[in-house]
Amino acid sequence: RVNADRLWDALMDMARIGPGIAGGNNRQTLTDADAAGRSLFQSWCEAAGLTMGVDKMGTMFATRAGEDPDALPVYVGSHLDTQPTGGKFDGVLGVLAALEVVRTMNDLNIRTKHPVVVTNWANEEGARFAPAMLASGVFAGVHTLDYAYSRKDPEGKTYGDELQRIGWLGEEEVGARKMHAYLEYHIEQGPILEAENKTIGVVTHCQGLWWLEFTLTGREAHTGSTPMTMRVNAGLALSRIVEMVQTVAMESQPDAVGGVGQVFFSPNSRNVLPGKVVFTVDIRSPDLAKLNAMRARIEAEAAEICSAIGVGCSVEAVGHFDPVTFDPGLVDTVRRSAEKLGLSHRDIISGAGHDACWAAKVAPATMIMCPCVGGLSHNEAEEISKDWASAGCDVLFHAVVETAGL
Amino acid sequence: RVNADRLWDALMDMARIGPGIAGGNNRQTLTDADAAGRSLFQSWCEAAGLTMGVDKMGTMFATRAGEDPDALPVYVGSHLDTQPTGGKFDGVLGVLAALEVVRTMNDLNIRTKHPVVVTNWANEEGARFAPAMLASGVFAGVHTLDYAYSRKDPEGKTYGDELQRIGWLGEEEVGARKMHAYLEYHIEQGPILEAENKTIGVVTHCQGLWWLEFTLTGREAHTGSTPMTMRVNAGLALSRIVEMVQTVAMESQPDAVGGVGQVFFSPNSRNVLPGKVVFTVDIRSPDLAKLNAMRARIEAEAAEICSAIGVGCSVEAVGHFDPVTFDPGLVDTVRRSAEKLGLSHRDIISGAGHDACWAAKVAPATMIMCPCVGGLSHNEAEEISKDWASAGCDVLFHAVVETAGL
Ligand SMILES: NC(=O)NCCC(=O)O
Ligand SMILES: NC(=O)NCCC(=O)O
Repeated sequence: RVNADRLWDALMDMARIGPGIAGGNNRQTLTDADAAGRSLFQSWCEAAGLTMGVDKMGTMFATRAGEDPDALPVYVGSHLDTQPTGGKFDGVLGVLAALEVVRTMNDLNIRTKHPVVVTNWANEEGARFAPAMLASGVFAGVHTLDYAYSRKDPEGKTYGDELQRIGWLGEEEVGARKMHAYLEYHIEQGPILEAENKTIGVVTHCQGLWWLEFTLTGREAHTGSTPMTMRVNAGLALSRIVEMVQTVAMESQPDAVGGVGQVFFSPNSRNVLPGKVVFTVDIRSPDLAKLNAMRARIEAEAAEICSAIGVGCSVEAVGHFDPVTFDPGLVDTVRRSAEKLGLSHRDIISGAGHDACWAAKVAPATMIMCPCVGGLSHNEAEEISKDWASAGCDVLFHAVVETAGL
Repeated sequence: RVNADRLWDALMDMARIGPGIAGGNNRQTLTDADAAGRSLFQSWCEAAGLTMGVDKMGTMFATRAGEDPDALPVYVGSHLDTQPTGGKFDGVLGVLAALEVVRTMNDLNIRTKHPVVVTNWANEEGARFAPAMLASGVFAGVHTLDYAYSRKDPEGKTYGDELQRIGWLGEEEVGARKMHAYLEYHIEQGPILEAENKTIGVVTHCQGLWWLEFTLTGREAHTGSTPMTMRVNAGLALSRIVEMVQTVAMESQPDAVGGVGQVFFSPNSRNVLPGKVVFTVDIRSPDLAKLNAMRARIEAEAAEICSAIGVGCSVEAVGHFDPVTFDPGLVDTVRRSAEKLGLSHRDIISGAGHDACWAAKVAPATMIMCPCVGGLSHNEAEEISKDWASAGCDVLFHAVVETAGL
């Protein structure tokens, strides 16, 4: 078994970097806080005897050597970046649990055939730079490096410039590494495991996603002196589209979600009707046909809503992945590890996207999940127990050792 | 008659300060651009032989002496501050036309009994610091100086600090000046004069206003892994309230408007349902009972909308004035001036709020309006013709001379 206290202490130490405003974290991608978190993680990796490599996306790979010089490594990790008002565990648990796995291997003097690489993927959240899972996406060949470098934050700063600025632009070609397998441990970010009192989620699939960015064009006009009949109100169109997305999601139950997280009014002044409204729609389903049908319906109905009131409407897809089926062999390894440890478990579909989803394109991959309180995530109040954290880490340890081979 | 070219040149010179992004201006209250605009205006006033006084709100009073030492001054002005994406004429026309009136008096060697004070009220727009017409409101005793100083911009900077920073904190007590009369010339900001082909609006009333700032509290949660039934979605509540405000305004026709100009999502991330949404509602009517009924209905229905989905809802009134009836004697002076000049005119109710609305509390006051293209204002594309600008200025000139007495 892993050292539960050491894992928890590492989590709490990392949470001191980039503190939030309500007990969580704001350690967004390629900020100074992200750089500080990376340095702390690097120092822990060095102390554990690992060899650090960094690729051109800024992803960190800390290798524990294996016995067989020809054996491809087993990659284990997640991400250290957070939402602007993120929790202490989303992503961080997966990276520090991977570190705890190699620390435990060191303690127990376990030598594996395959090397084990503790991995911190860059820009998983996609909060500062859309889309999410950007570095693993380049790694898996779904995005080009140029595309990734050109992604802009809301202030117009690019990924490429900011990566250079914080000093974490590595030398390795992205995706040059070949993987024997990829394993990722993460909090569920949903309510199922806690509600059913299961300690371990054996992740069999991940639902697919579309992120649609809408730009609505109305006419800026005075809120007081512009008669109701003369208004071309982009904000009214927004409100109808938000309601429509809700309806589409509700009518696509049980296995679908949809919502709007980001809205920018322009000029955003109390006495000016917005001339421009930019906002994003996030829709997901494990069923590819349903996911694409939702997208088509939302785009068609948004166009109708806008044209009825004379508002211009354009849509850009700024994030997408198809539903993922994880490697059945690895899934079975995780399930057997949970059973061997006597931990309650159930199969589960990931509601969130993860770097494992892109890794699954280039290697056998799967995930392990632990419960989180109230299913709450992307919220500073995100919470897990030390027992949950270490139980999943135990499963990860056994699955990694089995996959890496003794 | 006034010098139409000189008036137009002054408008175009001022428009060079704080340029916008689409041909208009961004010269928001107490910014460096505001300071630059004030300095230019000051230099013009000095060249015209006027004496400048500045009060503790930063309002500028440039006096042309009268013949009778006991006669109270006639105040003539408007504002030089703009919306973030404002036009070149909203407010500016009224200040520079007042300057053109005294320049013409100088040219014609006209001496008046009452002094004439060209006035630039601070923070009329209310875009950076709510509420609008803040300095004239303090002048008229409807706000305290402390209240005004404590108003914050979206970055949290206060009015008091920013006034000091730009160097325009004056020494005069606000409201110490007594007025014989107040006259304000402004673009209509609505479509009526142009549509009816009238050159002059004789402003008899101004509609009343409520600005309501709503704070909706939902629960930040992951857009992907949070089931639809577990969401407490403050953005969905916003969208329903926007639609409801539209309905209330439409059902209050013909003499009412309502809309939402400003929306802040928090944390405003694509994959986080907003935990907090702050937005403002602007409702107006010339009918006080209707205006207050709209407010009551909007607050009641917003509370219902929110409670149905578990979202917290609080409301603060951040701006208000009752409908205003302007001084019948001064209104008649304006109407007769237009007739004397052979200009087409009609009586009109101001759709926007103006400093004249607060001045009317402490002195006989009225306004003159000129048309604007397409009724468009609070838009960088705001446009008027040189002929319209000077025709209204001619009316202002005659009304001021009559009111100030020869
Ligand atoms: N796990 C997680 O929150 N990833 C961010 C991408 C997503 O929104 O699913
Ligand atoms: N004239 C003008 O736009 N004033 C700003 C206050 C208002 O919104 O009416």
